[in-house]
Amino acid sequence: MSDFPKSVHISEEGPREGFQIEAGPIATADKIRFIEALAETGVPEISCVSFVNPVKVPSMADADDVMQGVRRRDGVSYTGLFLNMKGFERALTVPVDIEGAIRISASEAFGIRNTNMDHAATLAEQRRYIEAFDAHGIILEYGYVMTSFGCNYEGAITSAQVVAATQSLVDVAADTGKRLKGIYLADTVGWATPPAIESAVGAVRDRWPDFEIGMHIHDTRGVGLANAYAALRLGVRRFDSSCAGLGGCPFSGGRKAAGNICTEDFVFMCEEMGIETGVDLERMIECARMAELIVGHDLPGKVMHSGSLDARRHLRAAA
Amino acid sequence: MSDFPKSVHISEEGPREGFQIEAGPIATADKIRFIEALAETGVPEISCVSFVNPVKVPSMADADDVMQGVRRRDGVSYTGLFLNMKGFERALTVPVDIEGAIRISASEAFGIRNTNMDHAATLAEQRRYIEAFDAHGIILEYGYVMTSFGCNYEGAITSAQVVAATQSLVDVAADTGKRLKGIYLADTVGWATPPAIESAVGAVRDRWPDFEIGMHIHDTRGVGLANAYAALRLGVRRFDSSCAGLGGCPFSGGRKAAGNICTEDFVFMCEEMGIETGVDLERMIECARMAELIVGHDLPGKVMHSGSLDARRHLRAAA
Repeated sequence: MSDFPKSVHISEEGPREGFQIEAGPIATADKIRFIEALAETGVPEISCVSFVNPVKVPSMADADDVMQGVRRRDGVSYTGLFLNMKGFERALTVPVDIEGAIRISASEAFGIRNTNMDHAATLAEQRRYIEAFDAHGIILEYGYVMTSFGCNYEGAITSAQVVAATQSLVDVAADTGKRLKGIYLADTVGWATPPAIESAVGAVRDRWPDFEIGMHIHDTRGVGLANAYAALRLGVRRFDSSCAGLGGCPFSGGRKAAGNICTEDFVFMCEEMGIETGVDLERMIECARMAELIVGHDLPGKVMHSGSLDARRHLRAAA
Repeated sequence: MSDFPKSVHISEEGPREGFQIEAGPIATADKIRFIEALAETGVPEISCVSFVNPVKVPSMADADDVMQGVRRRDGVSYTGLFLNMKGFERALTVPVDIEGAIRISASEAFGIRNTNMDHAATLAEQRRYIEAFDAHGIILEYGYVMTSFGCNYEGAITSAQVVAATQSLVDVAADTGKRLKGIYLADTVGWATPPAIESAVGAVRDRWPDFEIGMHIHDTRGVGLANAYAALRLGVRRFDSSCAGLGGCPFSGGRKAAGNICTEDFVFMCEEMGIETGVDLERMIECARMAELIVGHDLPGKVMHSGSLDARRHLRAAA
């Protein structure tokens, strides 16, 4: 039995996830033209930059300049990530679409290692975010549960832990009189396999049947698209992905942490299955090829190297 | 609903699929030590070489020397591919386990381009193989239907075409008083997506309920493991895969044709799902790292770069 959605909402993570992990500097102009090309593909949301400490993440030091430089296209959200209140305040000063999102790691150990905050401190911070969103007219929408499937410090994460982490975000929202629209389950460091996806999505859906569920999947161990397929079977409609498979988590502790599932490979799979993405696959492939030129090395996406099947079909029709 | 198998049989395709496509020469000694290392992983079958024209495929010119050099391990099959009777006769002269297999391409256009034979000529050749197998005490086992999902010359392949191609192999076997044990569906050039896998496997199973079904999946467009997962859900128990993702089809017409699904990534997925492979994942990862050193460039496998989850769990247990 399956419950495939008719369409999916894709958030493109490539510019932020990808450029922050590259060893060499990426020119601001290259970031801008990449983001502008992505916006031409039809993808509705692009995660462009991180507002983080430029000393710790020098590759994101030009975040403000990138957002100032991008010519915006109607109907596309251009978001930026922040991990503390200072980052949020910086985001307020530039043209960026601030997501009304709150976050917690299912693994408390992961949260402590990466943000120096335990669950209680994290939740207090999320409450401050909600109040700050309110003060600036930003609507609270999604909660993100990082390391929903496992963590290199704490090991496997159970569905019960995912539900507990989700509940903690639901509660902090309720404390301020708000309601989350849904929840993203993030496989931050690549512990998920299809049965784990089924188990976690099922547990969240049992508890919050009206929640929109999203997936943020890293392809750390090659099973990313199998995991995405398992989520699609369950009717999940929101996915983060990364053009060309750009990216990786700089904090994951992995030797070569992989990026999100590859956008154009995911778009290919969905469209071939009759699930609409709103993304022009050929344009996304062009973006992936642009990304390889910009970073100066091979990237893991496959369809950009093999070509789409539609391109094959057109070649045949023209022959 | 799903019908996951308790265990799967993996045939390792890396040495043959991988080394035949490499631009630079691979030392015979390197091929031998790679095959010997693979045999230590527990994988029951290794496709080692192709007995093909050394002028057309110089990288396989040392096929005889490779097979002469390999120290064999009990319980492991060391196979070689042949594409014509001359290759078969050459295989008879060296220590190699000759598979009693017959083959046809679901796409006649693909067969004509690659072997210069139409369906009728191909089937006549398969009949000669069966007679030759008989003469040498080789038991006919599996049929292979290449391009079962699509072909760059003919486009998409329907399940009806897969059934017709399978029927033609069944018939040629019956003409000689034989019976196939099962059928491998090969996604030779990467046209499959999970629904196509479901459709083709379902159609073959409806017609031949007692057939053992195998999958030979190329990860041309990144959905290889999603396709394998779809096949696992249907209870498919035989898979070809390639250590480190080595390989690619030299005849596929693709710009950068991808190899089979990556063995260690597939083993990782199966074992994490509780499906036994008989393969020691850590040893297979070591083989994948050896393969990268031998070919001298990055290979697409993921788990060999990120490490297994068991390795993570052990690190945590030791900490």
